[in-house]
Amino acid sequence: MVQIEYFFYFCRVNKVFMKKLAVVALGGNALLQSNQAGTIDEQEGNALATAECLVKLLKRDYNIVITHGNGPQVGNIMLANSAANKLYGIPEMPMDICVAYSQGFIGYIIEQQLKNVLEANDMDRDIITITTQVLVNKDDRAFQNPTKPVGPYYSKEEADKFTQETGAIYKEDVRGRGWRKVVASPKPLVIINKKTIEKIAREGHIVIAVGGGGIPVFYVEPHKLQGIDAVIDKDYASALLASQINADKFFILTDIPKVCLDYNKPTERQLDKMTISEAKRYLSEGQFPEGSMGPKIRAAIHFVEHSGKDTIITKTTLLGIDNGGTRITLV
Amino acid sequence: MVQIEYFFYFCRVNKVFMKKLAVVALGGNALLQSNQAGTIDEQEGNALATAECLVKLLKRDYNIVITHGNGPQVGNIMLANSAANKLYGIPEMPMDICVAYSQGFIGYIIEQQLKNVLEANDMDRDIITITTQVLVNKDDRAFQNPTKPVGPYYSKEEADKFTQETGAIYKEDVRGRGWRKVVASPKPLVIINKKTIEKIAREGHIVIAVGGGGIPVFYVEPHKLQGIDAVIDKDYASALLASQINADKFFILTDIPKVCLDYNKPTERQLDKMTISEAKRYLSEGQFPEGSMGPKIRAAIHFVEHSGKDTIITKTTLLGIDNGGTRITLV
Repeated sequence: MVQIEYFFYFCRVNKVFMKKLAVVALGGNALLQSNQAGTIDEQEGNALATAECLVKLLKRDYNIVITHGNGPQVGNIMLANSAANKLYGIPEMPMDICVAYSQGFIGYIIEQQLKNVLEANDMDRDIITITTQVLVNKDDRAFQNPTKPVGPYYSKEEADKFTQETGAIYKEDVRGRGWRKVVASPKPLVIINKKTIEKIAREGHIVIAVGGGGIPVFYVEPHKLQGIDAVIDKDYASALLASQINADKFFILTDIPKVCLDYNKPTERQLDKMTISEAKRYLSEGQFPEGSMGPKIRAAIHFVEHSGKDTIITKTTLLGIDNGGTRITLV
Repeated sequence: MVQIEYFFYFCRVNKVFMKKLAVVALGGNALLQSNQAGTIDEQEGNALATAECLVKLLKRDYNIVITHGNGPQVGNIMLANSAANKLYGIPEMPMDICVAYSQGFIGYIIEQQLKNVLEANDMDRDIITITTQVLVNKDDRAFQNPTKPVGPYYSKEEADKFTQETGAIYKEDVRGRGWRKVVASPKPLVIINKKTIEKIAREGHIVIAVGGGGIPVFYVEPHKLQGIDAVIDKDYASALLASQINADKFFILTDIPKVCLDYNKPTERQLDKMTISEAKRYLSEGQFPEGSMGPKIRAAIHFVEHSGKDTIITKTTLLGIDNGGTRITLV
């Protein structure tokens, strides 16, 4: 009898440990929609709507780690940085610091709105926003040919001056809006603090991490991590996190319910499921453009290939709904 | 024999749990000194020097939670905010968001430098920067008479316009530099996420939390937390954290080795120790001015009174040194 009681006690205290662990990569529209100005009220309203969808997943017995992008927010932060330097002579902060700003900001908003929704649903869980560094390699080939435009537009003269002063590379905008700094998008290698992120999440707390793809850092020398001007793809960094913390499922949220073939053509069709070899074939056939679905498919493949588990690509409102979204599987 | 083996196993796995837990409130000069411009190199250099002192404490078998101020950094963030609005029409972010920015930024810098120092010392611990909300009461009397100046200086006309638009209060700077927004400094009541902060720290990880006194939030209605324009005293918020997570010791770092009576007078003398009743008497005698030592003494009293444990006020370089600093005790 004693053994049986112990068994039930063990089950009870370990209940949260037995839940499945999911990583949920929020889409850009989770916080800011393309037709919005970016006021704090708009961003809080969007975060609240997202939080209500996340609760549906929590109710299906998942522990979750939430990741998010930071495109429009970090863009505004870099503009503010530049404006403060022009108007007040305040020293400009490098890219890694701007990402850290955006992680604090966006994490706080999601955390607050989600906490409000959890409390209203009588769910008592801590929500922990963790500033996250992500290791990259200084020898990554991406640094030889930076392509990702960031920050304000400048005149050619200003851009040339900055290049002389800092070595940074500026390229002319294709739509003629001016010259803009371009940075590399290197491959993420290690999520610093992955062990603690996994532990906190498996204990039943909700973790918000790897915001904006993480703060890119590299080893200048042994025992010397340092930030670097770069942007890590947030879906790929989220896939890396999901595989490094042994997640059971990886959700990539976007603004359409399912991945489509022949997107926006008369022959368009939605996919309920694809294997990673199908996904690779569609990628090579150009079905998923680089600016939108391409990076998500590659992130999905990374997770499935490294974990054997499924990735789901869908829209936020279909989270936790049976057969919502496109399931990417090993076989 | 089996029981004895179990006992040793228990001791081993619980080793980190048996360490003492300390909260260390960094001083403003931990990141930026008053004669510095505020470049990222200066701030990283200061954080590195601070990290080297923190390691001395870790080597004395403490688990630690680090808190920090954000005065100069959040000041620059608010200026940048205002400049971005003027130059580019970007929506201004309220005070709580600016604090969240600064928590991400400062936490990242301390985390990175401390990680480098730990690795060089062969110490393997995760360092976790947690965005921290701190609950205040909207009915706190401080909101009736806001006194804490924040953000840019404006002309009287600009200030009047903002007051009309937003209801915020602006006061003229005593040194005639213009008009500046003033916000309340309410009493912190609850450190949101204190349970998880304590747990992570007791497991042997280093936590960075409650940056800038925390993001001030209040309940607009049940289940609805919301940010508010206010500044929480960082030493007091740190004392509250220390008592709410049952810390064994609370360190408040400043730029002098010990608390002094008759500071800067011919009769100046350093204190090795004082009881909280002595501290209260000195406070009422005006020994500790509001702009500098006063808030630290009040924070020390709060922790000692609520925990029965000691607070140490000292400078960063004396951390972990026997008899360094002034010890504030219950009796």
